[in-house]
Amino acid sequence: MVETKQQAKPQWNIQPSDFSKLCNNPIRKIVDNIKKPATSTKELIPLSLGDPTVFGNLHCPDVLVNAIVRHTRSMQHNGYIHSAGSGAARAAIAQRYGNARAPLTPDDVIITSGCSGAIDIAVRGLLNPGDNILLPKPGFPFYQALCQPNRIECRFYNLKPESNWEVDLDHMQSLVDGNSKAILVNNPSNPCGSVYSKLHLEKILALAELNKIPIIADEIYGDMVFGSNVFFPIAELTKSVPVVTVDVRTAYLKLSRSTLGANSLVQSAIPGLLTPEPGSAEAQSLMDFKKRYFATLEDNAKFTTDVISEIPGLEVVVPQGAMYAMVKLHIDILTNIKNDLDFTQKLLDEEAVFVLPGQCFGMHNYFRIVFSAPHEVLADAYARLADFCRRRRSGH
Amino acid sequence: MVETKQQAKPQWNIQPSDFSKLCNNPIRKIVDNIKKPATSTKELIPLSLGDPTVFGNLHCPDVLVNAIVRHTRSMQHNGYIHSAGSGAARAAIAQRYGNARAPLTPDDVIITSGCSGAIDIAVRGLLNPGDNILLPKPGFPFYQALCQPNRIECRFYNLKPESNWEVDLDHMQSLVDGNSKAILVNNPSNPCGSVYSKLHLEKILALAELNKIPIIADEIYGDMVFGSNVFFPIAELTKSVPVVTVDVRTAYLKLSRSTLGANSLVQSAIPGLLTPEPGSAEAQSLMDFKKRYFATLEDNAKFTTDVISEIPGLEVVVPQGAMYAMVKLHIDILTNIKNDLDFTQKLLDEEAVFVLPGQCFGMHNYFRIVFSAPHEVLADAYARLADFCRRRRSGH
Repeated sequence: MVETKQQAKPQWNIQPSDFSKLCNNPIRKIVDNIKKPATSTKELIPLSLGDPTVFGNLHCPDVLVNAIVRHTRSMQHNGYIHSAGSGAARAAIAQRYGNARAPLTPDDVIITSGCSGAIDIAVRGLLNPGDNILLPKPGFPFYQALCQPNRIECRFYNLKPESNWEVDLDHMQSLVDGNSKAILVNNPSNPCGSVYSKLHLEKILALAELNKIPIIADEIYGDMVFGSNVFFPIAELTKSVPVVTVDVRTAYLKLSRSTLGANSLVQSAIPGLLTPEPGSAEAQSLMDFKKRYFATLEDNAKFTTDVISEIPGLEVVVPQGAMYAMVKLHIDILTNIKNDLDFTQKLLDEEAVFVLPGQCFGMHNYFRIVFSAPHEVLADAYARLADFCRRRRSGH
Repeated sequence: MVETKQQAKPQWNIQPSDFSKLCNNPIRKIVDNIKKPATSTKELIPLSLGDPTVFGNLHCPDVLVNAIVRHTRSMQHNGYIHSAGSGAARAAIAQRYGNARAPLTPDDVIITSGCSGAIDIAVRGLLNPGDNILLPKPGFPFYQALCQPNRIECRFYNLKPESNWEVDLDHMQSLVDGNSKAILVNNPSNPCGSVYSKLHLEKILALAELNKIPIIADEIYGDMVFGSNVFFPIAELTKSVPVVTVDVRTAYLKLSRSTLGANSLVQSAIPGLLTPEPGSAEAQSLMDFKKRYFATLEDNAKFTTDVISEIPGLEVVVPQGAMYAMVKLHIDILTNIKNDLDFTQKLLDEEAVFVLPGQCFGMHNYFRIVFSAPHEVLADAYARLADFCRRRRSGH
């Protein structure tokens, strides 16, 4: 009966959506073209992935492990929860991250799968196709990958390596027009490992205030700060520049409802992790954990700076936080190296050390080191890096 | 310096994005207007939420709990994995769900956060703004909530309550035009609890083949089938109608990369759950679990049908799977009941039993029961429901 109404079309012709065609991670195009060394006899050392669990030297805290085990056995955390997160977890986050100047209620909090889930909601709840967003350069390529399929224009403001990767404010201002709807500030920075001073953050806020552009703050590495550097959550430094307004909060909540939300089992561990009972064994254990964890990263940062700064042709901007260091390549004194991509490939071929070329972050003739590996692995990698550069220096 | 270039704008004016304005769950508008009973002395029985963990009578299998605990303690599953899922989990899924007619490789599998995450990728990877998708009515409101902000037109094909909620194929065909890019088939059905025969699925496939429209199959309740009913994965019944084509698979993978992907810890338990060693204690335990679990649901389905069919003014379509039953309201013989919304509100006010009005699923003068609660809770709820209807019947 159906068949008589309409002739069958001759061919299947199924096309992917335009949206999916625009989904491209700029890192992938670069990294996929890097060939694995076929001949190297050395063991590969990947200092490329920003994942501190890779080498097994940096574990998560026992308090977290015990909470997950306990809550798994309880069978109480397997059902549907609010799409913006469980009440207890949202309350703990509001208590831990709110402050007098930027107070938080649980209703202000949306829990997402990873920081990228949060940035996704923050951007898509605020910007329309044709709007533009100001992004750091060098910067985390996910920002661009997110904006492109949503037809949000990316405008890149320069960070100045000679001033601890601070924002070039004149350049940032020159990018602003009537369609600029958000400024993304990433502090501490991936890939730079920089931590901004209070004064510098206030200058960024002044620019935002002048132009009336809200700030989306990616502060995922907020706790990971070394030495005398202090991390200031940017929301604490302003009363006027919005991080979240009520209208937009509703928009964000609506977006969060479009899926089931973040894993409920893992959320069950958040309160004990963020707001342990003061003086309890858990609180002490967490404090000890943080001390050990950040001391390891800080030692690694110092070791990285000390060793790399002695290598001819390389210049490291001292990392102040996170687990990243950007290293400048002096192409002029390195024989037969065309650019950062060429450097990365040859280092991998000859020394089996893998770092990401700066191009991945929009920055030519730099490379990024992830320094979360154990000290002896870093020592081995940096020795090979030094050998490689010394050979290039003397024209081998 | 910055201040001299441009005058400060006078006002902050931050608007939510157009996309977020279109993010509306149609259930919410209806449910948010249902008032909680202020005066009822009876304990509330919610038969509204499709979550079998609510009452504590249906637990997840011990094999899953033990795997999560073991893998949490191992610290081996906390890092970044492939955004489409871990290799081991994708291999287990390919092995468990592939078959001779629709073979699967791990590369065909994308693991998402919940089934809604999968539908999100399936729809947005395939359809452009202005395209239309054919959706079941009554149907799960998430489909519509997903399509609306993406400006994908929803066209609703009727399911026929008098024929076990089968698709009205003439009606489905009448909705097709050149912009129809997908047919969503939900089997077993939420909210109907229906399970389609092989013959009926083949008719749907023939219509898809005739019009060259791919099928998106939401088969999340595929294992939950009662009595002599048999669930047929629709992909097993066709060689020509695409469920996934290679081009679209790439699109789906690209979309999956836009976030970090589903929780790695939980994914670590998938292989042991889907592909336990044959003959092992785990395999036996899982088999026992499934038998118990589905027997409970089947008993509840039968009990629901038996009791509700005796209540004047109600007519239940016998559920064949999942944990849902749609009940028809004979408004004409129920005194002073305007429609399903009115029925739901008054039942809640007078008897503290909460069910979802059919309007939530696009179906007027029906309501949906979730029958996963313990037997004694269902017995209590249905006794109240019977009291309520008998009072209405005799004109109290």
